[in-house]
Amino acid sequence: MTLSELRELLEQVRNGTLDPGEAQSRLEDHLSESPFEDLGFARVDHHRAMRQGFPEVVFGQGKTPDQIAAVAEQIVARGHTLLVTRADERAYQTLTRVVPEATFHAVARAITFRQGDVASGKGTILVVAAGTSDLPVAEEACVTAALMGNAVERLYDVGVAGLHRLFADHSRLLAARVIIVLAGMEGALPSVVAGLVRAPVIAVPTSVGYGASFGGLAALLGMLNSCAVGLSVVNIDNGFGAGVIASRINHL
Amino acid sequence: MTLSELRELLEQVRNGTLDPGEAQSRLEDHLSESPFEDLGFARVDHHRAMRQGFPEVVFGQGKTPDQIAAVAEQIVARGHTLLVTRADERAYQTLTRVVPEATFHAVARAITFRQGDVASGKGTILVVAAGTSDLPVAEEACVTAALMGNAVERLYDVGVAGLHRLFADHSRLLAARVIIVLAGMEGALPSVVAGLVRAPVIAVPTSVGYGASFGGLAALLGMLNSCAVGLSVVNIDNGFGAGVIASRINHL
Amino acid sequence: MTLSELRELLEQVRNGTLDPGEAQSRLEDHLSESPFEDLGFARVDHHRAMRQGFPEVVFGQGKTPDQIAAVAEQIVARGHTLLVTRADERAYQTLTRVVPEATFHAVARAITFRQGDVASGKGTILVVAAGTSDLPVAEEACVTAALMGNAVERLYDVGVAGLHRLFADHSRLLAARVIIVLAGMEGALPSVVAGLVRAPVIAVPTSVGYGASFGGLAALLGMLNSCAVGLSVVNIDNGFGAGVIASRINHL
Amino acid sequence: MTLSELRELLEQVRNGTLDPGEAQSRLEDHLSESPFEDLGFARVDHHRAMRQGFPEVVFGQGKTPDQIAAVAEQIVARGHTLLVTRADERAYQTLTRVVPEATFHAVARAITFRQGDVASGKGTILVVAAGTSDLPVAEEACVTAALMGNAVERLYDVGVAGLHRLFADHSRLLAARVIIVLAGMEGALPSVVAGLVRAPVIAVPTSVGYGASFGGLAALLGMLNSCAVGLSVVNIDNGFGAGVIASRINHL
Amino acid sequence: MTLSELRELLEQVRNGTLDPGEAQSRLEDHLSESPFEDLGFARVDHHRAMRQGFPEVVFGQGKTPDQIAAVAEQIVARGHTLLVTRADERAYQTLTRVVPEATFHAVARAITFRQGDVASGKGTILVVAAGTSDLPVAEEACVTAALMGNAVERLYDVGVAGLHRLFADHSRLLAARVIIVLAGMEGALPSVVAGLVRAPVIAVPTSVGYGASFGGLAALLGMLNSCAVGLSVVNIDNGFGAGVIASRINHL
Amino acid sequence: MTLSELRELLEQVRNGTLDPGEAQSRLEDHLSESPFEDLGFARVDHHRAMRQGFPEVVFGQGKTPDQIAAVAEQIVARGHTLLVTRADERAYQTLTRVVPEATFHAVARAITFRQGDVASGKGTILVVAAGTSDLPVAEEACVTAALMGNAVERLYDVGVAGLHRLFADHSRLLAARVIIVLAGMEGALPSVVAGLVRAPVIAVPTSVGYGASFGGLAALLGMLNSCAVGLSVVNIDNGFGAGVIASRINHL
Amino acid sequence: MTLSELRELLEQVRNGTLDPGEAQSRLEDHLSESPFEDLGFARVDHHRAMRQGFPEVVFGQGKTPDQIAAVAEQIVARGHTLLVTRADERAYQTLTRVVPEATFHAVARAITFRQGDVASGKGTILVVAAGTSDLPVAEEACVTAALMGNAVERLYDVGVAGLHRLFADHSRLLAARVIIVLAGMEGALPSVVAGLVRAPVIAVPTSVGYGASFGGLAALLGMLNSCAVGLSVVNIDNGFGAGVIASRINHL
Amino acid sequence: MTLSELRELLEQVRNGTLDPGEAQSRLEDHLSESPFEDLGFARVDHHRAMRQGFPEVVFGQGKTPDQIAAVAEQIVARGHTLLVTRADERAYQTLTRVVPEATFHAVARAITFRQGDVASGKGTILVVAAGTSDLPVAEEACVTAALMGNAVERLYDVGVAGLHRLFADHSRLLAARVIIVLAGMEGALPSVVAGLVRAPVIAVPTSVGYGASFGGLAALLGMLNSCAVGLSVVNIDNGFGAGVIASRINHL
Repeated sequence: MTLSELRELLEQVRNGTLDPGEAQSRLEDHLSESPFEDLGFARVDHHRAMRQGFPEVVFGQGKTPDQIAAVAEQIVARGHTLLVTRADERAYQTLTRVVPEATFHAVARAITFRQGDVASGKGTILVVAAGTSDLPVAEEACVTAALMGNAVERLYDVGVAGLHRLFADHSRLLAARVIIVLAGMEGALPSVVAGLVRAPVIAVPTSVGYGASFGGLAALLGMLNSCAVGLSVVNIDNGFGAGVIASRINHL
Repeated sequence: MTLSELRELLEQVRNGTLDPGEAQSRLEDHLSESPFEDLGFARVDHHRAMRQGFPEVVFGQGKTPDQIAAVAEQIVARGHTLLVTRADERAYQTLTRVVPEATFHAVARAITFRQGDVASGKGTILVVAAGTSDLPVAEEACVTAALMGNAVERLYDVGVAGLHRLFADHSRLLAARVIIVLAGMEGALPSVVAGLVRAPVIAVPTSVGYGASFGGLAALLGMLNSCAVGLSVVNIDNGFGAGVIASRINHL
Repeated sequence: MTLSELRELLEQVRNGTLDPGEAQSRLEDHLSESPFEDLGFARVDHHRAMRQGFPEVVFGQGKTPDQIAAVAEQIVARGHTLLVTRADERAYQTLTRVVPEATFHAVARAITFRQGDVASGKGTILVVAAGTSDLPVAEEACVTAALMGNAVERLYDVGVAGLHRLFADHSRLLAARVIIVLAGMEGALPSVVAGLVRAPVIAVPTSVGYGASFGGLAALLGMLNSCAVGLSVVNIDNGFGAGVIASRINHL
Repeated sequence: MTLSELRELLEQVRNGTLDPGEAQSRLEDHLSESPFEDLGFARVDHHRAMRQGFPEVVFGQGKTPDQIAAVAEQIVARGHTLLVTRADERAYQTLTRVVPEATFHAVARAITFRQGDVASGKGTILVVAAGTSDLPVAEEACVTAALMGNAVERLYDVGVAGLHRLFADHSRLLAARVIIVLAGMEGALPSVVAGLVRAPVIAVPTSVGYGASFGGLAALLGMLNSCAVGLSVVNIDNGFGAGVIASRINHL
Repeated sequence: MTLSELRELLEQVRNGTLDPGEAQSRLEDHLSESPFEDLGFARVDHHRAMRQGFPEVVFGQGKTPDQIAAVAEQIVARGHTLLVTRADERAYQTLTRVVPEATFHAVARAITFRQGDVASGKGTILVVAAGTSDLPVAEEACVTAALMGNAVERLYDVGVAGLHRLFADHSRLLAARVIIVLAGMEGALPSVVAGLVRAPVIAVPTSVGYGASFGGLAALLGMLNSCAVGLSVVNIDNGFGAGVIASRINHL
Repeated sequence: MTLSELRELLEQVRNGTLDPGEAQSRLEDHLSESPFEDLGFARVDHHRAMRQGFPEVVFGQGKTPDQIAAVAEQIVARGHTLLVTRADERAYQTLTRVVPEATFHAVARAITFRQGDVASGKGTILVVAAGTSDLPVAEEACVTAALMGNAVERLYDVGVAGLHRLFADHSRLLAARVIIVLAGMEGALPSVVAGLVRAPVIAVPTSVGYGASFGGLAALLGMLNSCAVGLSVVNIDNGFGAGVIASRINHL
Repeated sequence: MTLSELRELLEQVRNGTLDPGEAQSRLEDHLSESPFEDLGFARVDHHRAMRQGFPEVVFGQGKTPDQIAAVAEQIVARGHTLLVTRADERAYQTLTRVVPEATFHAVARAITFRQGDVASGKGTILVVAAGTSDLPVAEEACVTAALMGNAVERLYDVGVAGLHRLFADHSRLLAARVIIVLAGMEGALPSVVAGLVRAPVIAVPTSVGYGASFGGLAALLGMLNSCAVGLSVVNIDNGFGAGVIASRINHL
Repeated sequence: MTLSELRELLEQVRNGTLDPGEAQSRLEDHLSESPFEDLGFARVDHHRAMRQGFPEVVFGQGKTPDQIAAVAEQIVARGHTLLVTRADERAYQTLTRVVPEATFHAVARAITFRQGDVASGKGTILVVAAGTSDLPVAEEACVTAALMGNAVERLYDVGVAGLHRLFADHSRLLAARVIIVLAGMEGALPSVVAGLVRAPVIAVPTSVGYGASFGGLAALLGMLNSCAVGLSVVNIDNGFGAGVIASRINHL
C-alpha cells in the first residue's frame, strides 16, 4: 500500500463509501500481508527487487536441487531475473525442468535467467585476478555484475610475483570506475592496485593456496591490514558479494 | 533403594529378623549396584529418566550401526523412549532389526521410538531458522522437543537480509513460551529476535556458510557477543541440545 | 498508538470530525515518532521496559563517567530502575551527582537504583561458582537477577577438583528453579551440575586461568561441548547476561 | 613529466634546439627522479595527491612525536592538507611547534590542517554507530571523510538490541549516497542496514566488547559472513580507511 | 564414617541400644556432612590430604590477599602443610599476620609452611630448564616437589641451541627417576631429553618468547606433537602441576 | 664399543700389537658407525631397545604399505618386537608377506608381533574412556601398554553426564597404579578422575565431537586447564603415547 | 628497449629520419609492450628467466590439466626449462601431448623438462628430512634444486627421537653449503641442525602429524620460534620454495 | 681435543710414555669436559664461536639486569664480542659496571662490545623497511649484521602503498648480496622485492598494525604464503635472527 493508496482509503472513509471497521481491517491486512512466498522450507522475498534494485538471489550451497528449483520457479513466475550461485550441474539439470531457458556458467558455478530490463551501470567494472586458480571466484563476480547491468572487463593472472604483467594494463586500471581484485596466497595484489588508482577497490581473498594459507585466512588478513587506502574486503571466495557491491557503486 | 526401603531394612534389624552383617552387606550391595547396563563398549544409563526426566539419548556419530542397535535394544527393553541423533539410513536399517517400529526422520537425521507417557510442556516452543540450509539442525531440535512432550512450531527462512519476513510473524514470536533461533553465516538473527520478545531465546549457530565462517565459528562468536539480552547459546549445529534445554524450560 | 486508538481515529474520520489529510498526517507521525531519547552520543531506549520487562541497562565499559551519568539520568527521570554494569568507583562518583541514592556493588562492579515495583520470579535462582576467583562475575549475575525480582542463592568454590563440596549441597541444586554455573580454567562444573538436575542450567565461562586458558576460551569451548544436556552458554565473564536469561526463565 | 612535455622535448630534438644526449639525460633524470622527500626514517610521498586525489596521511601509532612533526612539516611545506591519525595530545603539542594552526580532534584521535581546495563529494556520507563506545572510531571516519570534501551525517547508538531506534531514521538511511556502519560485539548492524538500502555500505568492526569478542574478531567475522548483500568490510577499528573508501565512492 | 563405624552402628540397632529412626538419621547426616570449611567465598577442602596425599593448595592468582590469608589460616589450623602458588610480596605480608612462620620463595612466587611429616619420594626428580628466563616456572616446580617430600635437582640453561651443555650432564639425566623439562620458544628440549632416557618426562611449556610464540602456544604445540615417546604435557607455565605429577610418580 | 673394548684397544697399542694410526682409525670408525639400518627412505633405529627399553615403533600414517613392510622386516630380523600404529587392513596384508605371524588389531588400528621377553610392569594400568566413540584411541593405548608388559584393564563409557557409572567402579580407580583417561567433547572426565585418586593420570583428548570441539581442541584445552592436580596430557587421539608413558611409569 | 636503442632513436629524431610523433609513439609502445604471453586465463611471464635466473614455474594445484599443458607449451616454445609443481599423473598425461619428453617425478609430484644450460651452484645443498612421511616435500625440494643447477644430497629419517642417526652424518652436515631441513610434528630438527653448523638453514615445516599438529601449524610455530640462530622458514609443505632459496644462496 | 692431539696421545701410548689407563682417563675426561661456564641460572656456551663463527648472544628479555651483566661478564672475559638483544636502559646501566666500554643502541634495543677481529662478509646486506614504525626491528637487524662483519645499507619507508619510493632505489636492490625486508600490517613488501631480484630475501614480519593484524600474525602469514619465490621468513619482530642468517649467507 503506497501513500496515495492510503490517502484514497481515508477519503472513502470520509465519503462514507467505506466503513471504518472495514478500513481498519484493510490496514491491518496490509500490515500483516506477506511480501514473500512461503514454501515452508523457504520464504521467497518478492519485495527485494523494489527495496534493493535486484531480486532475491539463491545461494545454492546446502540446498537440494529440488529446493533450488522450487525457489527459482517462484522468482521466475513473478517476472524477476534469476541468479543461483554455488550451483552444480545436477542442480542445473533439475532447475531446467521448471526454467528451461536458464543458462549454466560452469566456471562461475552460477545459473542465470534474465527477465525484463535492468538499469545500466555508469562505467566499467574491472575484475582483476592474481592467478589462474582464482578464476571460479572471479567469474562469479563477473556473471553477477554483468547480470546486474554492468559493463565488465577481465584482467587475469597478474600477481605480484611479476608486477609488469599488471603495469602493462595500467591504463585499464585507471579507466575503470570500480575495480574488483582477487588474490589467494598472501593476497597482496589489492594493496598494489589500490596504491595506483583513485577508484574504489573491492578486495576478494580466495582460498587458493596451501599450508599456512589456512583456507584463505592469510589472504583475508593481508587485505584487511592493507597499508594502501581505498579498499574494502568481502568474505573469502565471495565473488558474488563483490559483484553486488561493485554494481551498487557503479549505479550511483 | 529408597528412603522407605532403608527404613524397613533398619526395622528388620531391630526386630531381629535381619542380621546386622546381612544388613551391612545389603547396604554395600546397594551402593555398589550399577544403575546401568554394561555392554563393554557402552554403559547404558537406566537411571537417567528418573534423574532428569528423559532416558539416555544415543549420540549416533562415531558409533557403528551394531553399537547403536545394541544400545537402543537395551533402552527399549526397559520400556524407555528411544532417541538416536546423528544417525543415517544405514544405522536405521540395522536398528530396525531390534526395534522394528522405530521411525527415521531423514532431514533431522534422527531415529525415534516413543514408549509410555511423557509430561506435556506448558507452552509452545517456536523454532526459527534463518535459512533453508539450516533445516537439518532445526528439524533435529523439533524432533527432540516434540518427543519430550512439547508443542512445536516452525518459522523458517527469515534471515536478517529481509527482516519483514520475520516481522510478518511477530505475533507468533510473542506467543511462544521459548524460542530456538538457528542461523549460520553471521548469526545475527537471534540478536534481533531476542530484542523483540520477553521469552528466553536459545541460539544455535549452524555451520552453514563458507570462507571466514570457519565451520560456524563466526555465527557462534556473533551469538555469544550479542548486544541483545535474554539469549544463551549451544554448540554449533547442536539442534538436539537446544531442543532439550527448551523442553526443560517449557516444563517449568 | 494502540489498536483502539486507531479505531477511534477512523471513527472520527467517518464522523467528519477529523480531516482525512490530518488523519494521514497523524498516522505518519505515529510511525515516525521516536520511542527513545537522543543524546547525540546515545539513544536511550525508553520502550524497552514495555517490550522486554526491564528498562535499558547501561554497559559501562568504554563509556566515560559523564556519558554514563547522562544516560543514567534519563533512565531515572522516566521512573525506571537503573542498572549500570562494568562500572568502576570513578563512574559511580560521577553518577551520584545526578542519582545520589544509587548503590555501588564493588565486587560485582555494578551500580543500581531501584524504582517502582518489579514482578517476582517464581522460584529460586541458584548461582554456583567453581572458585573464589569467579566471584566478580558471579556477583554480577546475582545483582542483576535480584534487581529483576528474583530470589537468589549462592554456592561458591565447589569446583570439580573436590566434588564432595558440591554434592554436600545436592538438595539446593535440586530445589532451584534455574541454575547459573560459573567456572574458569577447564570449565567442567556446568557439565557435572547439568547431569544432576532437571532445571535449566546457564553456563558462564570466566577468564580465570592462565596459559592455555586463553582468556576463558578453554572454559567456553568446554561448556559448548558439554556431553551433559540441559545447559546453554553465554559469553566469557557475562554474569549480567546469565542473570537476565535466568530471570526471564524464572518469570515464566 | 606529462605526455605534452614529452612531445615538446622531442620537438626540440627535431628542431635541433636540444641535443639528443641532453634529451636522453633528461628522460633518464625523470625516470630516476624521486617524487618523495627522504627523511631517513621516512619517505614522504609527494605524488600521492596527484595519483590518488589526497596527500599522504600520517599513521601516528608507533611513531615518536618528533617523527610525526617532521613528516607533517614536509607535507604542509608542499601546500598539502595534513591528516594525522591515531595521534595523542603529546604528538599534537609537538606538532604545533611546526604547524601551529593544526586542529586536534580528541575523540577521533586525529590532527588536521586543511590547505587549498578539495573536490566536493556528490552526496551525503552517513556514519552509523551501534553504540556509544564506538564513537572514537566513528569520529575518525567522520573527520577523514569531511576533510576529503564530503558532507557527513551521524547516526549513533542504534544497535540491533532496539531496532526501532534505527528505523526511526529510515529516511536518512535511504537518503545517504554511501553509508558507513560501525559495530562491535556481534557486529550485526551492518547486515541489517545493508538489507534496507541500495547504497553501498562500508562495515567497520570495532574492538568494543569483551570475552569471546576477541578484540573485535567476532564483529569482523560477523560482517564478513553477512547474509545481506552490498556491504564490504575494513579492518577492526579502521575508521580512517572507511572514511577514505566512502569518500572515493562519493566522488564518483 | 568408616566401614567399621557402620558395622558398629548396625550392631547397636540390633542390640536395641540405637533406635532405627535415629540410625537412619545418623546415616543421612553422614551423607550430608561437609568435609570442608565454608568461608562463603571459598570452601576449604579438608579431606584432600586423606584423599590425595597432600592438602588443598591455594592458587593465589585472582584472589585478594585477605582471601588468601583466610584460606591459609584454615589449612594451617588443621595442622596441614601450606602451599600458596602465584603469590606476590603483598599477599605474603598479609598472610604472615596469621601464619607468621611462612616462607616466601620470590623467584617461584610461592608461599610455604610445612607441618607434620610427609612421605619421601623414592628417587630424584630432575628439573631441567632450557633457558634462564624459564626459572620462575622451574622454581615453582622445585618448591612444589620438595614440599611434597621429594629429592629435587636442577639443571638449567641447557637449550637445544647448544646441546653439549645438556649432554655434559647425561649421567644425571639417566640417574633421575622422573624428569621435568621446561622450555619456551619452540619447546624442543623435552623431545630431546625423552629420546635419551627411560624415565617418564613431564614437559612444561613456558610463555618465554615473543612474536609467533603466542604466549607459549608454540612451545605447547611442539611438546604435544613430540616425535619422542615417554613424555606428557601440562599447561603453559604450570610448574606447580608438573611438580605434583612428578611427585605422584616418584611416590609409587 | 664398550669401555672394556676401549681399554683392550689401548692395551694393544701399548703392547705394540696395534699401530697407533690403525687404533685412531678404529676409534674414528666407531664414532661414525651407524647403530641403525639405512633404507634410504628410513633409518631403522636398532639401539632404541637398549636405550629406552622398547624397540622403535612404526608410525604407519603417511607411509606406504611397502615402506611399512620394509621397516617391519628390519625390526623383526633383529629379533625385536614389532608395533605398527595407525595401520590399516591394506598395510597389514602387505606386511604379512614378510612377517606372516603378525596380528592386526582392527579397532586399535595396530599391528603387533611379539618376540623375546619383556619386563613386567608392577601394577595395573586402567584405561578409562568417556564414551563408546573413544574406543579406537583407547584400544591403541591398551594394545601398546599390553605389548610393553603391563596388565591392562578397561573401563569404558563413564562420561561426566552420568557420573554414577564411574563411581560404580571407584575401587578399580583406587586399585590402579597408573590411569589413562580418554575423553572427547569437553574432556572433563580426567579432571574428575584425578580428583578421586592418588595415582598419576594420563589424559588423552580425543577428536570425538563436532562444531566447536574443533577436532579435539576443546577437550585438549580442557585437560590442560584442569583444576585438578596430578594429571598430564598427550596429543589429541594419541593413545599410543599414553600407553608408552603409562608403561614407563608402571615399570618404575 | 635498451639504453643504446633509446640513444639511436633520439639520434634518428635529430637526423630527421624519424618523426617526433612517430618516436613518441614508439616510446609509448615500448612502455605498453607486454613481456608475457596472454592466454586469457594466464599471463606467462617470459621475462622471469632474465630477471631472476629461472623461468616461470607452474603451480599445478587448482589448475586443470588443459591449463597446465597450455602454459607449459608456451614456456617450452620459448626454449625455457619447464617445472610444474603439485602435479598429478593426469596432468602429466595431458602435458605429454604437447611436451612429450617431459619427466614425471611421482614422489615429488613434479613435472620437469630441461632445456639449455643452467649455471652451476657452488657447493652442495643437503636436504635433511625428519621422517619417511616427509619424503614428498623433501623430494620436491630436491627436484627443484637439482633442476636449477645444484648438487643435491639427501639425509632422511633422522628425527630428534634418535639423534645419533643425525650425528652419524655430522660430516655431511658440516660439508654442505646450504641445508634444507624438513620436519612435521613438533618440527624440532631444524633447531638442532642449525645449532651444529655455520651454513644457512632453510626450515620447512610439513603437514605430517595429527591432532594438535593442526596441519603443520605446530611445526611451523616451532621453527619460527627456534632458539637456534641461522635458520629461516618457508610455508608448510613448501619444498619448492625451499629449493629455490637454497639455490639462490648456492649460486652466490 | 683435536684430531692431531688424539694422534699425539696415541703415539705417547705406543712410546710407552703414557700409560693406557691414563690415556683412557684423558679421553674420558675430554668427553665429559664442559665447554661452558655454569652460573647456576645460566650455562654460557664458550664453544659457540668456534662452532658457529660468533659467540653466544644474550637474549635480554625475561632476564634481570644482574643476570644479563653476569653472563656478559663471562663472555667478555673470554675475549669474545658481546651482543645483548632486547635490552633496555636499566640493563645497560647495570652492565656497564662490568663492561664499561659497552655501547647501547637505543632504537635497536641492543648492547654491543666488540673484541678481536671478525671475518668480513663478501657483499652488502640491504635492510629494507616498509614503514617508520618498523625501525626498532630493522635497526636490530642492522646492529647484528654489522657486528658480525657485514657492510649494511638501509632503505626505509618504502611500503607498497607507494611503490615508486621503492623503485627509485631499484639499483640498490639489484646491488645487494642479501636483502632483509621488514613489514608489518599486510606484509606485502617482501613479495614485491623478491619478485625484482635474484638475491636471497629474508622476510621479517613486524608487529606494527592494529585490529586484525593480531600482533604481526597477518604479516607473518602473508610472507609465508608469498607467491614470489626466493624468500624465507623469521619470527615476528626477529630482527636479530634476520641479521644472523643474512650474515651467514653473506659470509659464504
